[in-house]
Amino acid sequence: MNRKDFVTQLVPHCTGTPGQHGEAWAPVNIALAKYWGKRNAELNLPQNSSLSISLPELGTHTRLTLTEGADTVTLNGALAPEAFAQRLSRFLNLFRPDGLGFAVETTNTVPTAAGLASSASGFAALIKALDALFDWQLDYKTLSMLARIGSGSASRSLYDGFAVWHRGEKDDGTDSYAEGLPETWPDLRIGLVEVDTSQKPIGSTAGMQQTVNSCPLYTAWPTFAEQSVQTQLAAIRDHDMEKLGDSAEHNALTMHATMIATRPTILYWTPETVQAIHTVQQLRASGTPVWFTMDAGPNLKLLLPHTAAAAVQTSFPEVRILAPFATA
Amino acid sequence: MNRKDFVTQLVPHCTGTPGQHGEAWAPVNIALAKYWGKRNAELNLPQNSSLSISLPELGTHTRLTLTEGADTVTLNGALAPEAFAQRLSRFLNLFRPDGLGFAVETTNTVPTAAGLASSASGFAALIKALDALFDWQLDYKTLSMLARIGSGSASRSLYDGFAVWHRGEKDDGTDSYAEGLPETWPDLRIGLVEVDTSQKPIGSTAGMQQTVNSCPLYTAWPTFAEQSVQTQLAAIRDHDMEKLGDSAEHNALTMHATMIATRPTILYWTPETVQAIHTVQQLRASGTPVWFTMDAGPNLKLLLPHTAAAAVQTSFPEVRILAPFATA
Repeated sequence: MNRKDFVTQLVPHCTGTPGQHGEAWAPVNIALAKYWGKRNAELNLPQNSSLSISLPELGTHTRLTLTEGADTVTLNGALAPEAFAQRLSRFLNLFRPDGLGFAVETTNTVPTAAGLASSASGFAALIKALDALFDWQLDYKTLSMLARIGSGSASRSLYDGFAVWHRGEKDDGTDSYAEGLPETWPDLRIGLVEVDTSQKPIGSTAGMQQTVNSCPLYTAWPTFAEQSVQTQLAAIRDHDMEKLGDSAEHNALTMHATMIATRPTILYWTPETVQAIHTVQQLRASGTPVWFTMDAGPNLKLLLPHTAAAAVQTSFPEVRILAPFATA
Repeated sequence: MNRKDFVTQLVPHCTGTPGQHGEAWAPVNIALAKYWGKRNAELNLPQNSSLSISLPELGTHTRLTLTEGADTVTLNGALAPEAFAQRLSRFLNLFRPDGLGFAVETTNTVPTAAGLASSASGFAALIKALDALFDWQLDYKTLSMLARIGSGSASRSLYDGFAVWHRGEKDDGTDSYAEGLPETWPDLRIGLVEVDTSQKPIGSTAGMQQTVNSCPLYTAWPTFAEQSVQTQLAAIRDHDMEKLGDSAEHNALTMHATMIATRPTILYWTPETVQAIHTVQQLRASGTPVWFTMDAGPNLKLLLPHTAAAAVQTSFPEVRILAPFATA
């Protein structure tokens, strides 16, 4: 099964006229049980299930308009970089009405490619904008599978709050999608510690492929990752902060361990990353409940209850603390 | 089988009179294929074979004298720390003539417990001094097994140059010993980069036990480690610097990966460690053949041909470069 056939079986039609438009917003998400390794690169089918929390305020807004010309892509009001525009156009080819182009206006409220998964919110917003543009009225399960084709972690960015991306078993990819969890957790806080917002040394797709191919420890990862999802589902159900934080931190360190054991090694860590890890360990040793997770990049994301916010802010003066479930 | 029975079957006797003495020297060794994980803690039987290179000049000299009183231990001319002295006395209990004590005078030319395996040279020197004291005239294979009881990696410090510690298969520990390799390699250089010579956050024995117990990736380590030994034996035979360096670096990073994925995590790295890793990567990217290995600590040890010494010295002004096989 290729991407085009996969998409064709899921969407009712791809017909429209120039000037027709659709727009949507999607949040970034932070994986607490990570996606690392594909079992099918064409369909972005993962080796393991994953679990995430979406962030409020941070994400991508995208407006799509059908045009008679070639695609145009703007990012944050300026012409998008060539590689970025080409990646979007290749994805849009899967949905392109004969002879038409797309004008894409995208606004990110997160630094692009800085380890905050802007590709996740980007492709989630894009597929929601396509749904609006073509008036498909598809359910989120289907949109999640379509977003997955653009970027695996985008499958989880359809949802606010917690989401689980089910690995699935089928070769055709129709059982690999994310679902939102009903649980809220008003006391939960996420802290963003930006060590470095420059471009990454290696992208996630290439990095995970290299890991699957040459990390001698990788074989043990998928089973562990599934266990992390189960542990975290129980922790979320019970609002058990220590269990969630401990599992998320262990999961992230184990993913980075598979990268570090890859040849050539994939080391996203900088000296500042290690310093920040030590700071979290010291905070916890002195009684402050705070844990970290890291994506494929050098930055830390902290998990903490709101009661720990002041202590965390003291040790990380630049931290940005967000409340995923806070109500006005 | 306990330690005492193991020792009793190997040594001809433990009889002597006060004033009798023996002395010996043993080098530190740096594992290029690491020992990480015990399959039997009582007899220090490893999960995997390992391969090392001994350093010239750096090591331990020990002089033993039988006394009528309690044990006395000096380290570098001063009374040894209590924990250090107790560890030696417990080991010496295995060889103690009825009613006698040992005066132990030990001199280390490496910082104690700084990741340079002074316990390896220490127990190797101690067992050689015991052999001299009691005039056992045991072969190095047997001395290697006896040194192993004191500290696993001490089994390799009997030898100059390269040594392989065979994992062994037997439960009684009589096939788990190190052998020296006949190969020399005059062009080979080892660079010592001391990031931090303070005490380690967790000792090797506790660290490897924690890893075996709680690292989800550990199951894949022993097989990989055996492959590293085979790869390195071929590299040493062919004097293939790139193959040896690449295997040693991959092996070290994979060992640290198992530590990082352990819960609670075992992170020996400091910010300076990561900086030094990046510097090695940059040197290599710019054409300088240099690789690193790391033991259970924050310091890097570099592998390089003598032709790379000047470039390495420029990037690491404090590096101490040693020639394990240089002749006068």
